[in-house]
Amino acid sequence: MSLSELTDVLTSLPGLGPRQARRVVEYLLRKDSAYRERLAALIAGARLEVSECTRCFRFDAPSASGLCRTCADGSRDASLLMVVEHDVDIDAIEAALTYRGYYFVLGGLLNLVKQRKDKILRTRELLERITPEVREVICALAATPEGDYTAKELMTQIRAARPGVAVSVLGRGLSVGAELEYADPETLRSALKNRG
Amino acid sequence: MSLSELTDVLTSLPGLGPRQARRVVEYLLRKDSAYRERLAALIAGARLEVSECTRCFRFDAPSASGLCRTCADGSRDASLLMVVEHDVDIDAIEAALTYRGYYFVLGGLLNLVKQRKDKILRTRELLERITPEVREVICALAATPEGDYTAKELMTQIRAARPGVAVSVLGRGLSVGAELEYADPETLRSALKNRG
Amino acid sequence: MSLSELTDVLTSLPGLGPRQARRVVEYLLRKDSAYRERLAALIAGARLEVSECTRCFRFDAPSASGLCRTCADGSRDASLLMVVEHDVDIDAIEAALTYRGYYFVLGGLLNLVKQRKDKILRTRELLERITPEVREVICALAATPEGDYTAKELMTQIRAARPGVAVSVLGRGLSVGAELEYADPETLRSALKNRG
Amino acid sequence: MSLSELTDVLTSLPGLGPRQARRVVEYLLRKDSAYRERLAALIAGARLEVSECTRCFRFDAPSASGLCRTCADGSRDASLLMVVEHDVDIDAIEAALTYRGYYFVLGGLLNLVKQRKDKILRTRELLERITPEVREVICALAATPEGDYTAKELMTQIRAARPGVAVSVLGRGLSVGAELEYADPETLRSALKNRG
Repeated sequence: MSLSELTDVLTSLPGLGPRQARRVVEYLLRKDSAYRERLAALIAGARLEVSECTRCFRFDAPSASGLCRTCADGSRDASLLMVVEHDVDIDAIEAALTYRGYYFVLGGLLNLVKQRKDKILRTRELLERITPEVREVICALAATPEGDYTAKELMTQIRAARPGVAVSVLGRGLSVGAELEYADPETLRSALKNRG
Repeated sequence: MSLSELTDVLTSLPGLGPRQARRVVEYLLRKDSAYRERLAALIAGARLEVSECTRCFRFDAPSASGLCRTCADGSRDASLLMVVEHDVDIDAIEAALTYRGYYFVLGGLLNLVKQRKDKILRTRELLERITPEVREVICALAATPEGDYTAKELMTQIRAARPGVAVSVLGRGLSVGAELEYADPETLRSALKNRG
Repeated sequence: MSLSELTDVLTSLPGLGPRQARRVVEYLLRKDSAYRERLAALIAGARLEVSECTRCFRFDAPSASGLCRTCADGSRDASLLMVVEHDVDIDAIEAALTYRGYYFVLGGLLNLVKQRKDKILRTRELLERITPEVREVICALAATPEGDYTAKELMTQIRAARPGVAVSVLGRGLSVGAELEYADPETLRSALKNRG
Repeated sequence: MSLSELTDVLTSLPGLGPRQARRVVEYLLRKDSAYRERLAALIAGARLEVSECTRCFRFDAPSASGLCRTCADGSRDASLLMVVEHDVDIDAIEAALTYRGYYFVLGGLLNLVKQRKDKILRTRELLERITPEVREVICALAATPEGDYTAKELMTQIRAARPGVAVSVLGRGLSVGAELEYADPETLRSALKNRG
C-alpha cells in the first residue's frame, strides 16, 4: 500500500521519526483533497521557483545572472569567503549583522565513520571558487567532531591548492549563559586564548 | 514566492515548527525532481488508497463492505466498543494484545477553552454506533484535562441516549517506572482503588 | 585533609554528586562558625528528637507508648497494612486522603543484581507485624523492576507464613497527563483491566 | 521540633530543594549515631583544617606564609591575575592546563536587580591585589547577565585605579557541540571575531 511508502518517505525527512510521520499521514488523510493537492503541487514545483546559485550553491529566487542575492551584491568584501554546511547557516550569520564577505554552501560534512551514499560535499567546487581575490577562507562549520574533521580536511586541501590563502575556523569560547565551573577544558582554553 | 507558502504549510503539520519546516524545504530542494514528484504523488493520492471505515471512521485499505479490517472481523466481542481519539491509538491498544472488542475513532477532544473551527468530533455518529448489542462503551481518551472533560461529556450523552449501556474510562494508576514519593494524589487514589 | 572526607561523606548523601558536594563545602566554609556549629548540632542531635516507631519503624516524635502518631491512632482500620519503602511515601499516601489503614516501613528494596551491604529490609519484622487482625497487606512499592521484584518476594513469603492474608499491589494505569499513543503495553493492559 | 529546623538548613544549602532535604534527613536518621557524629564533627571543624589565602582568598590547607599553594608558587607568571567567582572555578581553569598566572576569588557577582545582604564581593581587596607587577587582569566570570555586569563594573574601577593595567574578559564563541544554525547572534559575532 502506498500509505506505508508515504510514511517511509516522510520518515526520511530531516527531524521526522516514524511516529511523527504516522501522525502527519493521519493528519493529511483528515484534510480535504484540495489541501493535499496544494501541498503536493508546492512540493513538486519547489525547484521551479528557486535556482541554485552558480557560485555559492545556495538556493534563491532565479536571476538572469544565475547568482543569488548575496553573490550578485558587488559591494561585499570579495577577500573573505565563508564556508557553511547549509543554506540556513547563512541566515544565522546574516542575522548577526557583522559579516560582509561572501559564502559557499558545502552541502554536508565529512562523516567520521562511513560515507553515506547520498552525501553532498562540494570540495572540488570550493577549490574552484577560491579565486585570486579571496584572501581568507573561514570554515564556519558546527563545533562537533564531524564539523572539526571536515574543517581540518578542507584546511589541508585549501593550503595545498591555494598556498597563499589564509584558512580560519570560528572561535570557540564560553557561549552566552555558560558558567565556568561547567565548561569543558577545550572551551576554557579557547576562551582564555580569545580573551580581549 | 511559493517556497514560503510550502514552509507555511509544512509548519502547519503536526509536530513541525518553522525551523524544522525550513530544514525540510532545503532537504527537498537538494533531492532530485523524481524524489519530489514521488512524494507529491503519494500525498495527492493518499486518500485514493484508503477508505474511511463507515462504522468506526478509521482509515484502512478499501474493501467492498466499506469496513476496516477490525470492523469486518466478526469474531471480535460486539458487546464492547472503545472510543479513541486517533487512529494511532488503535495501534497502541492492539499492541497490548488484550482487547477483543470494537473501536470508534472520535477524531478529536472537546476543548476546555474554546472550540477550534476545524475540530472533528463525531459525537452524533458515536451515539448511532451504539447498537443494542453494545453493552459497554470504554472511553479510552488521554489522561489530560481535555480527555477527562470529553469523557465526562460523552458519558452524559451516552447515558441519556442509551440508558442500559455501561460507560467506563481507562484506569489510572502508577505508570511503569513511577515512584510513590513523586506520584500525584489522584494517581495514588486510583492506584489504591485499583490494587489487586 | 578532613575537607576531602567531608566532601566524600556529603557525596554519599542521597541526591548529591561530587560537584554539588564541593559547592556545599565551599558554601559551608564561607558561612560563619555559628552556622556550621548549628548545622553540626542539628545533625548530631537529630535522633534525640525522634523515635523509631516500634510497630511500623517510621520516625516520629517520641511518645510514652513507643508508637508513632498513626500506629497510636486506634480509629484506623486494623485489617489493612500498607508496606512502603520510605517514611516519605507515607506522607504521599496520607496526602491522597483516602487510605485509613496502618503502615509498615520496609526500609529498602531488594536489589536485582547484588545486595548492597548497608541495605535495610525488614522482612522478618513485617511478618511479625502481620497479626491476626490484618486481613490484607498492600505492597505500595515503586513501579520499578526492583519494586516489582521486592513485592513478588514479599507476596511469596507472606502467603507461606500467613496463608489467610490477602496480598495486593497498587494498580497500574495511565498516570495523570498520559496520552494513549505513548503508553507502554503493560500500562495499557492494566488501564483496560482497571477501567471503571 | 529541631528536625524541621534541620530540614530548613539543609534546604538552604546550594542545590538542595525541600524534597531532597527531607530525603537527606531520613537518610541521616537511618544511619547510626557514629555516622551522624562524624559528619557533624567534619562540618563543625571544616574551617579549622583550611585557611583562607591572604592574597587570593581561596581556601586551602593552612601554611606558615598564610598563602595557598598557587599564591606560594613563585614560578607562575606574576603579570597575569585572573578574577574568578568561586574556588571551584580555579579547579576548572587548572584542569584546562593552560593558564600560568595567579588567581583572585571575588566571592560573588553583582546582582542586577538588588543587592543580597550576605553577598561577598571583594572589590576593594582586588584593587589592593593589583600590584605594579600585574600587567593584565582577566575577568573570568560567568557568561551571564550578572557576570557581564560585574566584569563591566570591575573594568571601570580597575581602569580608574590602575590606568596602566590591561583588563580582559574570556572570549565568547561556539562552545563544543554547538551548531551554527542554533547559535545566538552575539555568540556568532564573537566566534567570527575570534576566528583563527
